This record gives sequence, structure tokens and C-alpha cells, in this order.
Amino acid sequence: MRTTVGIIGAGPAGLLLARLLHRAGIESVVLESRDRAYVERRQRAGILEQGTVDVLRAAGAGERMDREGLRHDGIELRFDRRRHRVDFPALTGGRSVTVYAQTEVCKDLIALRLEEGGPLLFEAEALAVEGAEGDRPRIPFRHQGREDVLECEYVVGCDGFWGVARGAFPAEVSRVFERSYPYAWLGVLADVAPSHDELVYARHERGFALLSMRSPAVSRLYLQVPAGTEAGQWSDEEIWDELDRRLETDDGWRLERGPLTQKSVTPMRSFVHEPMRHGRLFLAGDAAHIVPPTGAKGLNLAVGDVVTLARALVHERETGSPDLLDAYSATCLRRVWQAERFSYDMTTLLHPAPDATPFDARLQLARLERIASSRAAETDLAEAYTGFPLG
Amino acid sequence: MRTTVGIIGAGPAGLLLARLLHRAGIESVVLESRDRAYVERRQRAGILEQGTVDVLRAAGAGERMDREGLRHDGIELRFDRRRHRVDFPALTGGRSVTVYAQTEVCKDLIALRLEEGGPLLFEAEALAVEGAEGDRPRIPFRHQGREDVLECEYVVGCDGFWGVARGAFPAEVSRVFERSYPYAWLGVLADVAPSHDELVYARHERGFALLSMRSPAVSRLYLQVPAGTEAGQWSDEEIWDELDRRLETDDGWRLERGPLTQKSVTPMRSFVHEPMRHGRLFLAGDAAHIVPPTGAKGLNLAVGDVVTLARALVHERETGSPDLLDAYSATCLRRVWQAERFSYDMTTLLHPAPDATPFDARLQLARLERIASSRAAETDLAEAYTGFPLG
Repeated sequence: MRTTVGIIGAGPAGLLLARLLHRAGIESVVLESRDRAYVERRQRAGILEQGTVDVLRAAGAGERMDREGLRHDGIELRFDRRRHRVDFPALTGGRSVTVYAQTEVCKDLIALRLEEGGPLLFEAEALAVEGAEGDRPRIPFRHQGREDVLECEYVVGCDGFWGVARGAFPAEVSRVFERSYPYAWLGVLADVAPSHDELVYARHERGFALLSMRSPAVSRLYLQVPAGTEAGQWSDEEIWDELDRRLETDDGWRLERGPLTQKSVTPMRSFVHEPMRHGRLFLAGDAAHIVPPTGAKGLNLAVGDVVTLARALVHERETGSPDLLDAYSATCLRRVWQAERFSYDMTTLLHPAPDATPFDARLQLARLERIASSRAAETDLAEAYTGFPLG
Repeated sequence: MRTTVGIIGAGPAGLLLARLLHRAGIESVVLESRDRAYVERRQRAGILEQGTVDVLRAAGAGERMDREGLRHDGIELRFDRRRHRVDFPALTGGRSVTVYAQTEVCKDLIALRLEEGGPLLFEAEALAVEGAEGDRPRIPFRHQGREDVLECEYVVGCDGFWGVARGAFPAEVSRVFERSYPYAWLGVLADVAPSHDELVYARHERGFALLSMRSPAVSRLYLQVPAGTEAGQWSDEEIWDELDRRLETDDGWRLERGPLTQKSVTPMRSFVHEPMRHGRLFLAGDAAHIVPPTGAKGLNLAVGDVVTLARALVHERETGSPDLLDAYSATCLRRVWQAERFSYDMTTLLHPAPDATPFDARLQLARLERIASSRAAETDLAEAYTGFPLG
């Protein structure tokens, strides 16, 4: 099997890259180890930056997002039983974010890919990346019980943190940067209208809580729990009671309850692999970097990567110049490190660590006070939340 | 001995408070355990916020400061061998800072105090504060070998971190918040014109360095060293060599050397005692809170405290209302915690910790990049550096 760009992984990075290349007339094959139903069910992020929305629209993948996505012009910070709203458009010259689940983005991109007839192989497990340093890299893979090889001009690893692509970088060129956190998120989906029309980020001495939503009828709620917690350790009632405590305000706001349809625990990790390119192998999205979910940056970073990469591949096709491909890693890493910084800051702003001292607690409150009282500090947050420039 | 306000400590807090009270017609006595020469020689901070300058001027203590102080409209951040200037007036609507050493402020205030004939007793060691909860608090003290007692209506502890005043708070009302840092500052005074006309804050992988000045002919320089370092462990040449390494840029900037006239090590500590008032006993300045020196906030916080306190005492005299005295602790602590936050942030932004991971190092660089590329982030820093509102 032969193609121009071999893409490992049909998450949002791989699917969007295939779409962008298709529209530029560049052939690609997408290999996905899971089946379609699994990919379309996987719950992930749900906040699209303005730039991500623009990219999806420009790629012709924005129709349902424009119909069903919820535009959000702000978030609420809760601390000390008080509420502070951060008004994005007022602080950033009109930028906002859109709530539209990653799983829906994937469904839309899969439908488009199949419609355009582009090769997208489910249950096709990439086994390795070979020859990244030469002219014709290859991806041996297993599909429907048979072993095969995809021969490419370029290979892009969009196969997430656990994928094979990153392992093809020789140890002597790889640098890894990471940090783990002593807490995780217990996340639930609930069949109940969200109790607030924007996301609520709550810092409470008992732990962080987040009120989010998937649709006008489905709430998405999170609780900070100790790292290593299993979802089954919390009963539905315990979850609601704890959300009540952490989200409580002095002005009588109430959290509406409903049936929980899903419970899961998300670990928190910061991770960056440098560089993001070796020879003809490129990494994009979670394969190269992980952020804790507090800043809602994971999906948006992946989109930034593949937009940068698609542009560079098209540029090389059209001009013969590898300049943009050569700059790919450094270009992406500038944005990646800003997102890592912001995600770390949002996380440590809102999560009391298990070993936090009284000084640390006061520091968190002073940071929140600062955001609530300085337009500069608030703008810094709003700019980062609504998104760093792509490319 | 009797007075209205008994002030323990003739640092800038105690001296300025005595001056402000004198001008409002309120009597006070200042007790200082050291001799005058010691107080006038003690090297401390040297950066006055705009608000501090305004207060000293309004107190009639600004004459020499206005003549000899150096107005600074910015600082330089150095990282990755690059330079980024933060322009204070452009970012804050005209605010700046003034370089004028704390020791000079003390000399000016001592001269004024002696001129106005107000009691200022050197080598007068306060032994305790008694009766803070009653109407007539007392300060037993030892002066020139004799024990005496100062009877007051109010006692103000301006006696620094190691003073006796804080110890008069009953354990059950005291809350202490603190953090230590695994590094310290080795500071030197050098008889050489400063090699840059504004302060240079350098983040280098070998450690932080700061280029500052006391006058157009005297440089003040600092190096991050491990906590516990003794000044004598570093030869003059080693200090200059290390400053060269950490301050080096790609554009050929050079550090001029000169004879070192003083060497000392400053530990780094964050500390807050809550509340700042108990009955008729008030704490001001370092007696209540310590910041690491990176944000240049210590002296300015002390000035903020005594301005707030003088206003409250005058208000009580004039109206009989204790409202402002009752609000003193909460009013000051809001400003104190913002300064604690800023000082912590400036410190951790610029000092690589001994146990820093590669992730931590990248995070510092990303923060510096953010300040250098976002007007909002840079404004947040400039606002905090030039000063939070007094009162």
C-alpha cells in the first residue's frame, strides 16, 4: 500500500489533517487501531477556541458545529463562595469559545472522510514507523488479521500519548519534559440541563469542581479527587453532595441534579516531547504533548499542530521548499509551551494540593482576587483561554 | 513615661509612623534597640513605589529623595541571552519607581524626628507588650542600663521579624503563613557606575542575578546562591565571573567591575502573621509580614501599613469612631497578600530551584516569553511592580 502522507490515528488531529490535505490535493491514508464505534463514543474535551472553530469551518467541517455548538462569551470563577465572571469578548477584542464535544468533531470528520472516499482504515494497528530518516518511511500495520505495510513520503504520528510513533525517535534526539499532579478529575455526564449557562471553575478548600455541559440537556461535571481514585468509589449521591459543597455560593445559586449516565476518572499530566519532527516523521497532538484538562487546551493544540503541518506540506508541494517543514517543530513548540504554562497555571490556581500549606491556600485566593480586580490579569487569562495564535 | 502611641522600632515603618502622627498632632515615643549609627548603616531595599514617594513627600520627608533619588521608568528582564524591557509609564498610565536606599530614607526620617524634638530613644530595648487587650497597654523597656515602662493608648510593633511585639498576640488568635526557599541572595556593593541605567533581572540556568544601584557611582549586585551560603565563601573575582556568566547577552553588553565594599547574604522567606491587630496592639512592616526581595516590596508594604494606621488613628481622634482601626488588619492584609503573591511569582519566575526539573525550566522560559509577548501579562507585572494602591 502506498500514499503520500501516512497518518497514524483517527482522533481529531489525524482526521483533520487528512481533511486539510485532501482539500489541498495531497493524498493520505489514515490508520486507526480502534473500531469506528469506539472512536465515535470516546469522551474527551469539549471547548473549541475561536481559531479551532475557524479552521473547522474553513475545512468544510463546521456545519453541524455551527448548528449545535454553544458559543460561550465567558467563564465564571468561584472562590470564597463568591462569583466572578470573565468576559472574553470584552477583554480580547471579540473572541469567544464554542462548546462542542471532541467526539462530535470526530464524528463529523469521519463522515466527511468516508464521503470523500479517502482511505480511513479502522482496526488497523500501526506496529512501528520505519525509515523515518530516509526518503521512503514505512508503517507496518495489522488490519483484519493480516499484516501489511504502508509506504509513504511522510509519516504523521497522531496516535496519542500511548502510540507507537513517538517511539520511532532515536533516544539521542528525544527530550522529554513532564510533570504529574497528585490529583485527578472524576468526571460525570448527567441528563439534566446545566445549572449555569457558562462553565463554572470553582476553587474550594475541599477541592476543585467544574460545571460544564455537552448540550442544553446534558451536564458535564468534574470533581478533583486524589490521584489513583476509581470512579466506582463514588456513589451518585456522594458526587452530587460534593458538587453542591464545592459550588455553593452566598447568593442562593442551586445545582440541579439528574441521572448520571457516565462516570470516569481522568489523570492529570503535563508532558512534552521535543522535537516534534525527526526526518520524515512528524508528531501532532497528544503524541507530542499532554496538558492537564483545566485550560481546555488539548484538542486546540492538536488542531494547531495539524494546521501548521498541512500548511508546511502544501508549501513544500507547491514551492519545493522544505522551510516550513523544517520550522514545524519550533513553530508548534512555541504555542505548545504557552499552552503548557497556561494549563499548569489554571490547574495550580484552582486545585488545592494534598500537601498544600496554609500559605499555598492564601496564595491561590490572592491569585483569584488579582484576576477579579485587575483588568490586565484578567485579560491575560482571557487571551490564553480563548487561544494563542495558530501557526 | 507616658505617650499616646508607643512605637517599637526605628526602621522606616516606625519612623514614618511617628512623623505622620506628629504632623497630625498625635504624640508618640519611638523605642529602638540599636544605636543610631547601626540603624543608619543597615543595608536594605532600595526601590520606592510611586505611592511611597508620594507619601514621603507629603510627610515633608522627600527633599533629599527628590534631589538624589533616581527615577526609573522600567526594568529589564534577561533570559536566553536576550533582553526585554518593561516600560512602566507606558503600561500603567504614567507610574514609575524611584531608586533611593531604605537606609537613606531612615537617615532623613531620623533627622526630621530629632529636629521636631519628638522622643526617639536609641538603645532602648522593648522587653514585652503588656495589656494589649485593656485600655492602657504598656511597654516595659531597658534604656542605658535602666528598666522603665512606656504607658500608651496604643502600641505599634514596627520591630521587624525578630521583634517582641508579635509575641504579645495570644497563640489562639495568631495564624502564621510561611514558606522558605532553597536559595538566598549574595549581595555586594561595588564602587563602580552601574553597567545599565535600570535594574536588570536575569534568569539564567546557573541561577538568578540582579544588577541594581545605590547611586550613579555605586552598583548593587546580587547572585542567587544556595540557602546557607556564607558571604566569605565567594571571592570578589568569583562573584564578578559569575555575574558575567549570568548577565551575558548576545548583543555584546559588558559588566563593568569595581572594588567591592560590602558582601552579605540575604535569606529568602515568605511570612504573614494574621491578624495584624490585637486589642490596642498593631503590627506594621516586617513584624507582620516578610516577602522575598525579588519584587522589592518589603519597604513599600511597611509604608502602606503605617499610612493606613496613621489615617485610622487620626480618624479615631477626630470622630471618635474606631471603624478604621477595626478595619486596619483586613485593609492591610489585602495589599499584603497581593504583594506576597507578586513577590513569590517574581522569585519563582527567575530563580531555578536546586531540584528543578527540565519541565520547570521550560515553564520559567514560557512565562518570560509570555511577559515579553503579551501586553496584558506585561501590564500585570508593571502594575504590581510600581505598586498596589495604598489604604
